[in-house]
Order: sequence, then structure tokens, then C-alpha cells
Amino acid sequence: MMKSIFDTDAPHPEASSLTAFAQNALETRSELRDENSLEEAFKFDGVHALAFAGDKLILKHDRQILDPLFAPYELTSLDPDPDNAVLLGYLASGEPRLAVPVGIDPETLPELYKAIGARSLYRDALLDDGLVSEAAQGFSLLHWNATNRFCGKCGSPTVSQLAGYRRSCSACGHLMFPRTDPVAIMLVIDEDADRCLLGRSPHFAEGMYSCLAGFVEPGETIENAVRRETLEEAGIPVGTVRYHASQPWPMPHSLMIGCYGRAESTDINFDGNELEDCRWFTRSETEAMLARAIGEGKSAPPKGAIAHRLMRDWLEWSAS
Amino acid sequence: MMKSIFDTDAPHPEASSLTAFAQNALETRSELRDENSLEEAFKFDGVHALAFAGDKLILKHDRQILDPLFAPYELTSLDPDPDNAVLLGYLASGEPRLAVPVGIDPETLPELYKAIGARSLYRDALLDDGLVSEAAQGFSLLHWNATNRFCGKCGSPTVSQLAGYRRSCSACGHLMFPRTDPVAIMLVIDEDADRCLLGRSPHFAEGMYSCLAGFVEPGETIENAVRRETLEEAGIPVGTVRYHASQPWPMPHSLMIGCYGRAESTDINFDGNELEDCRWFTRSETEAMLARAIGEGKSAPPKGAIAHRLMRDWLEWSAS
Repeated sequence: MMKSIFDTDAPHPEASSLTAFAQNALETRSELRDENSLEEAFKFDGVHALAFAGDKLILKHDRQILDPLFAPYELTSLDPDPDNAVLLGYLASGEPRLAVPVGIDPETLPELYKAIGARSLYRDALLDDGLVSEAAQGFSLLHWNATNRFCGKCGSPTVSQLAGYRRSCSACGHLMFPRTDPVAIMLVIDEDADRCLLGRSPHFAEGMYSCLAGFVEPGETIENAVRRETLEEAGIPVGTVRYHASQPWPMPHSLMIGCYGRAESTDINFDGNELEDCRWFTRSETEAMLARAIGEGKSAPPKGAIAHRLMRDWLEWSAS
Repeated sequence: MMKSIFDTDAPHPEASSLTAFAQNALETRSELRDENSLEEAFKFDGVHALAFAGDKLILKHDRQILDPLFAPYELTSLDPDPDNAVLLGYLASGEPRLAVPVGIDPETLPELYKAIGARSLYRDALLDDGLVSEAAQGFSLLHWNATNRFCGKCGSPTVSQLAGYRRSCSACGHLMFPRTDPVAIMLVIDEDADRCLLGRSPHFAEGMYSCLAGFVEPGETIENAVRRETLEEAGIPVGTVRYHASQPWPMPHSLMIGCYGRAESTDINFDGNELEDCRWFTRSETEAMLARAIGEGKSAPPKGAIAHRLMRDWLEWSAS
């Protein structure tokens, strides 16, 4: 059989598809966004919107089932701002899906409403994966729109265009596009001792260790960002880097780029400003951490997090 | 021998390192950037700066050798703006390297100065790869600083902090960080007929065809961006996606993420707004295009472009 460029020994055909926030089934039709798309979507018979108060998604509930989908008329009591709404995309049925910022204070919501941040949305599995992923897209786009109400070049007000996917300066015409911040996140491997490198930030839940990570800076390749961040945070030089998976991360609009890195030495010298601990974990320690719930001793990030995926797939890979 | 997670059949250990703009040898010391870094760098004995007028790098020359390195005193006649300078990093010697915006109009430069855009800098190989890569970092950072002089949240003036790697609003305190825009760029392969998919934008040099590409949107994985863009631009559904290489692309601050995609059908239906042609090219046609200079019939992007790398490595890979 002819060898294919797509044949690899990775444990899954596409690890990215196994991460949280990555199950967005909406067709974005990005090439068709125009000045009428948003108005047409609001008029679509049976359209539903996700509603966001700052960095919280608003949910209705009947004490049992949580429902994030609002008909436009149901938004009225939440103080909606349709001029800064975003058209996320379309369901297979052709129904558009909107994301609408609302002015209501999430602390003073009426009974039978809840306000939930992106992190708990995936960690507590409060909605199905598709809706969680649509919410992630909404969080990112609304955050970007909210932080670009004024022109960075001249300071004048901007207006939303292309259904929330562009903002234009009312004075100088400067155009701004949504932001996606690439982050390198890496599981660094000590191949000789079959161990992986994990760190603990002071912000983490008790006992949790995770992969090192940092923003890719302008002028860097992904591989160089992996090496720079690992050297800065842990003092470990990294040689070969292998891309494994990516994940949208809506806090507020990152793209996690998950890689493996080969450690070229093993003496850790970690940056105490960023990390409160950083150490090597054996295969069996890593297996135990993945199995353990957060709070029951040393643990890993929850299923759905790309760091969990990198750890789990390292174990599966090297076991095969 | 134990199997390693780092073993692949790729033709190079790290294709990213073979792209233009990726040869930046500066140590950024990003974790040490503080309010004094820039001032200390300007005072460093023997420090040199790259000078940028808008989107052009300024070069001195003696009619033979082009020199982009200016001592601070040499910048005076170019109307420098040191408050918005950026500390790019440090040479192995400890010497800092600066990027300084200058006010002089590149159209009215004195004799023995030239102003060059990022694209010609790499295409015409005017400087060594390391300096071209430093210039790329400078283009991106200065462009970001110049387009964020005012706060997106409240419209007030911002000030540069952390040696050009952060801007802070003078009124509301909102913090802004440099932007890196991930772009999916893909060589889509028809494995049955051993052909690759290339398109021609109306902006391209005559006869040039290249990989399809588009910005990764908030809420997408890299793999989903590859599939969405290929479907939108060429009407071709893509299955398996394999990451190959990345490249910093300073027009103005992108991160090109190069992938292979497996075509699931071959009937092209291209978007006439984005492309003026899109077609399949056989292995031998692709080889000929890579060998041909631009303007001599159908050609490929120049060496150093990640699209060139994707095409070349597909040929090497499947030949092995």
C-alpha cells in the first residue's frame, strides 16, 4: 500500500476533536457575512440567541433543566444590546444562532435564571458539548467587541459590522477584526526516565498540576514559543517539538496549541513568580492524577482540557 | 529500541525552522521585561536599533552594503519616537536590540537611505536571515503599538509599558497585549490522483499559485479552520488534517499554521470573490512550479514562504 502523508502513530485521528469547546457544529458561512446578515437573523422565524452578561452566559431553568436558548422576545427583560450582537452561524436546518450582550447585572437576576462563566460551563458539563462550544464562540466574540468600542488609532467610537465580525471607526475608517490569541501549551517529556514535566500555578485548584503554557509572541514559530516558555518557566531546554492538538479557549479568546517537547536536560529551575511548584511525574503518577478528582491529592486538569488530552495521549502513545 | 513520541516520517525534524522570518536568535527574556528595560537598553554601550517608518524598515547603505543597524545618535535625523520603541531582545553578547518608530516620510529619505517593506526584505534576500527575522518581530510589534494608541474600552490615550509589550489606558487602566493572528494555510491533497490544490488570488504576481489560507476564527480548532476555509474557498470537503510547520508573518502580525488536508472529493467550486483560479496540480507540475522563477509561467511562492515549504515537503515526503 502506498504510504500516506496522513498516516501517523498518534492514538487518535484528531485529538483536537476530543477537547472541550471544539464541538461547534454551526456552519459559520463566514464568506457570506454582510451588512444585512444580523438583521435577517433576528427576523428569522424561530431564531434563538445565547445571552451574555459580561463574561457570564445567562441560562433559564425550571429547577431541573438548564436552557441557554432565548427567543428574541424573551431577551427584553434582560436589557439586550442588539447593535453589538454577533451572528455565530447556522444550524443544519438553516436556523441562525445569535449571541447577544445583555445589560442586566448577573448578581440581580430574577428567580429561575442563572449566570455561568465559561470555565464552569465545561467543567461542570452543564450543557451539551455543541452548546458549550457555541457559547465559547459567543464569549470570545462579545468580549472582543466590548473591548474595541473605540478606535485604537484615533480614539473615536467604532461601530459593529459584518454581523459582529468587524468593527469600523466612525471617524478615520480604521477596520478591526476579531482577535484569537495563540497559546503554546506543552507536555515536556524526559524520555530516558519516562517522565513528564508539570507545574502548579498559585491560581490552580488545590493539588492540581498542569502543562506549562504561554502566549506565542509576534515573530515566533510555535516550536520556538514552546522552547522559550519551557526554558523561562522551568529552566528546561527543549529540543524536538511535536504538535498534537488545538483547542479554542474562551477566556477570553485564545487558541491553545498543544505540543509535546523533548527535554534536553532534567534539572528544573522554575520561575517562582509564575509557578509555586514544577516537577517531573512518572507514568504511573500521571495515570493516578488523571484518574483522581480535583481536591483528592495531586490531580490533573479535567477531561476536555487540552492539558488532560496531552497527558492521557502521552500515556496511550507510549504504551502502544 | 523503544518507540518515541517524537519519531515521525516527516522529511525534516522541524520544517518551521526552514521558513523565512523564523531565524530570530534574540533571547527575548520576556519574563524579565519591566518598566526599566527600555531605558536601560537605550543606555547600553554599543546598542543598535532597527528603525521603522510606518510599514517600512529603514536601511543605510554605501551603494553596496545595506545596513539596518542604527546607533541611537544616528536616529536623530529620522525623527525617532523612543516612547513607543520596543525592546526586541538580546544578542548572545548581552547587547539589547531595539525597534524604534521614526517620523520621517520614507518618500523623502536623504541619499544613502532606503525604505523596504517586509515582503521584499525576505523575497529579495536583502539582509541575513537573522536580521530579517528581527525586522519581522519589529514590524509586528510597532504596528500593534501604532494601532493601539487609544483604549478600545473608553477611547482615552494609552501608554506603552513593559518595553513595548503592553499598553495601559491612562484613564480606565485597561491593559492591552500584542496581537498575533493565527492563519490556517493548507496544502490539500487528492491522494488518489497524487495532486495538490492551489489557488490564485487576483493580488498575486503574474502566474503565481499558492496554498489556500484564512484566519482561524475565535471558537475554532486549527483543523476545523482548515476544513472551513477549504470548503468556502474551493468547495472541497477535507477530512484528516495534519499539522506541518508554522511561520511568523509580519503583514502585520500573523502566525501562519501550515497543514496538509486530505480531500474527500475533487470537484472544485471556487469562490470567485477570493480567487481568480483554483485547480489541481500533479506532482510534476508542482515540481516545475517550484523550480520556475515568478513571471516565467505558472510558479510557486518563493523559498522561505511556508506555502513553498508545504509544496516541497509534500513532494519529498511522498517520494521517500
